[in-house]
Amino acid sequence: MSNTQSKKSPLYVTLLSDFGTEDGYVGAMKGVLLKGLPDLQVLDVSHSIKAFGIKQAAFSLMNYAFYFPPGTVHMVVVDPGVGTRREGLVVQSSEYFFIGPNNGVFSYIYQSTKYQAYRIREKQFGKKVSPTFHGRDIFAPAAVRLLKGDVVSDFCDPFQKLVSFYESYEDLGDDEYRLKVIHVDHFGNLILNFTMKDWESLGSPQDVRIQINHSFLVGIMKTFGDVPVDQLLMTWDSRGFLQIAQNCGNAAQSLSKKEGDHIQLKIFHLSHPKRTDI
Amino acid sequence: MSNTQSKKSPLYVTLLSDFGTEDGYVGAMKGVLLKGLPDLQVLDVSHSIKAFGIKQAAFSLMNYAFYFPPGTVHMVVVDPGVGTRREGLVVQSSEYFFIGPNNGVFSYIYQSTKYQAYRIREKQFGKKVSPTFHGRDIFAPAAVRLLKGDVVSDFCDPFQKLVSFYESYEDLGDDEYRLKVIHVDHFGNLILNFTMKDWESLGSPQDVRIQINHSFLVGIMKTFGDVPVDQLLMTWDSRGFLQIAQNCGNAAQSLSKKEGDHIQLKIFHLSHPKRTDI
Amino acid sequence: MSNTQSKKSPLYVTLLSDFGTEDGYVGAMKGVLLKGLPDLQVLDVSHSIKAFGIKQAAFSLMNYAFYFPPGTVHMVVVDPGVGTRREGLVVQSSEYFFIGPNNGVFSYIYQSTKYQAYRIREKQFGKKVSPTFHGRDIFAPAAVRLLKGDVVSDFCDPFQKLVSFYESYEDLGDDEYRLKVIHVDHFGNLILNFTMKDWESLGSPQDVRIQINHSFLVGIMKTFGDVPVDQLLMTWDSRGFLQIAQNCGNAAQSLSKKEGDHIQLKIFHLSHPKRTDI
Repeated sequence: MSNTQSKKSPLYVTLLSDFGTEDGYVGAMKGVLLKGLPDLQVLDVSHSIKAFGIKQAAFSLMNYAFYFPPGTVHMVVVDPGVGTRREGLVVQSSEYFFIGPNNGVFSYIYQSTKYQAYRIREKQFGKKVSPTFHGRDIFAPAAVRLLKGDVVSDFCDPFQKLVSFYESYEDLGDDEYRLKVIHVDHFGNLILNFTMKDWESLGSPQDVRIQINHSFLVGIMKTFGDVPVDQLLMTWDSRGFLQIAQNCGNAAQSLSKKEGDHIQLKIFHLSHPKRTDI
Repeated sequence: MSNTQSKKSPLYVTLLSDFGTEDGYVGAMKGVLLKGLPDLQVLDVSHSIKAFGIKQAAFSLMNYAFYFPPGTVHMVVVDPGVGTRREGLVVQSSEYFFIGPNNGVFSYIYQSTKYQAYRIREKQFGKKVSPTFHGRDIFAPAAVRLLKGDVVSDFCDPFQKLVSFYESYEDLGDDEYRLKVIHVDHFGNLILNFTMKDWESLGSPQDVRIQINHSFLVGIMKTFGDVPVDQLLMTWDSRGFLQIAQNCGNAAQSLSKKEGDHIQLKIFHLSHPKRTDI
Repeated sequence: MSNTQSKKSPLYVTLLSDFGTEDGYVGAMKGVLLKGLPDLQVLDVSHSIKAFGIKQAAFSLMNYAFYFPPGTVHMVVVDPGVGTRREGLVVQSSEYFFIGPNNGVFSYIYQSTKYQAYRIREKQFGKKVSPTFHGRDIFAPAAVRLLKGDVVSDFCDPFQKLVSFYESYEDLGDDEYRLKVIHVDHFGNLILNFTMKDWESLGSPQDVRIQINHSFLVGIMKTFGDVPVDQLLMTWDSRGFLQIAQNCGNAAQSLSKKEGDHIQLKIFHLSHPKRTDI
């Protein structure tokens, strides 16, 4: 920029971690970021990811990453393998940088956008790197370097062996599908690995049923309040995943379901002759 | 503003929700706000309101809203009826905008200041609005529009049928009053619907008693440390509501009291002959 | 600054409290800070310090304070004695201001840097000060005054009687040391009052053992992943304190240890003839 009076675009770093806030570890990362870039805006997404909750972090990241202004750096520090040989990554899409460990936290990003992945050359960050806190000593300084205009290759090498874990639903035949709970959110909504696109590819069937113990949830509602208070329902979550919810309640608790559990979905095509339910 | 070099006033949006942070829903709202207004400061108030905790949110909002710089937009997203026919509101006071659902979250605001209320025309926010996430798809974009200078009538209609729930204390006669616990705070302080103004209107009586089980709390203390550690006391909270607290303890737990419970207050006017306690 | 066009350095206040966020008390402090200094960046460190957790706050503060840009004001509002005769302090080091109560929250700061301490003249903050909320009515306004350029002596007096609580480990003789758990972090790591410097002053012994019930932890590992999942280990924390951790687990829970508990450390110097363990 030739004109020093010109208005600089604001710079953003988002933070997602399983650190909690109470030990000051997150504070230390914020300090490093602001010392490096005094005009930076640091945005907390969450530090309440459950300890070592890689899958929870991955799902969460997808929920916010693409709403931010282009140029935002998204840091994800859920890193049980910190200091071991797991790689530190910079993942670059057309609009964003993602920085974090190579343990699957970027699984949904890899599915959602084109990207280039790089491995951070840790040794370039000096001898004072704590082997238990790369968030402060490597990832935050890496974010600063990228936002200051360093090119990725200055401190990274291209890298391919990315850890990723997304699992598609299973087609069991006879219009039955085995879905997995991929995320349980703060309200106890059970989010399933079945998207609105999957549903459309099956012909947008209206008569969709999920068996819960000895009864059925039938049809996909528009919103929670479309059923009476405390009743269970199926609806699309705000990113287009099928979810099981409970109006003003907690479906995960009511159904004793958790991340990784399975649920059977059956589709009755309207054109089919109606079958008899069990 | 004619002079493009002139310093713009900073813009602020505060966020209060029951979302927790760990799913990235709050992150998505922050992204939408910053994409719309790159120079905005987004201030977290809380995302730990209990799920569907409308009354807790309403009380909390009153505790901070009026301390912010004029022009601040206060977003409140505690919204169990999202996507149903409950209205989305913009409430405008002389200094602030409030955005959120018409479910009572603004009850204390209506009592505290003059205001104009408007209903958001949801359809104006496009077809991509998720029926389960108006915080991201309607309230945040509405905040952006207001801060960019759109007038309220551009996307809102005047509206009167406001949901509100404040309940005054009951005068039982004979200097006895039935108070309600309207809020239990983080420290377990029991905040009652009886204010310093109410007390002054009763002649600022010094001899005020609350019966707790078989004993009494007598007199309104200045602060927690005016009684020994672990002892219960009455004091004014930081906004002028009467509260029952426990020095270095948790009154709500010690007394097994919760929001909505009642407590009896008795006033002994100094001019009265002293009565005998039971 | 003579040139009004000149770029002002950004100003920062960090917040650490035991308030939780859900009552809006933290929001009120943010409002006061921004109303006083519209361009300020307010950085949350944590509001999840356990209620009245002075020692937790003190340890946390040390973990982040010195990473921030010079000029940052660090506010610490963990203040069970609010409104009593405990003093409100401004502590000034060469790079930072610290504001909070005189109850030990600055114990590690006093050890880590040179400083001048001052007592805030509370009466100068007006009659409207709530005796239960100095964070909003005294500490935040004090931060604003300092960042606006007021000199400390404008509203403070020099003060010496500082409350502090750091306790060194005990040398039991015969190469045995009694250490104390000074902090339990979010992951359940048990942090001990024994630093890398202490260890170096003992000759950096490689054969270091801690007795845990009937078995031993031997040697100081580089990082968590140097032992199998679920196994306990000793390692240095990110600030150079010895800690007991569990790879992908929670050492505090596994060992039923908490802040204030003691642990015995034994050193076997390599030059010594090997002794027999019990």
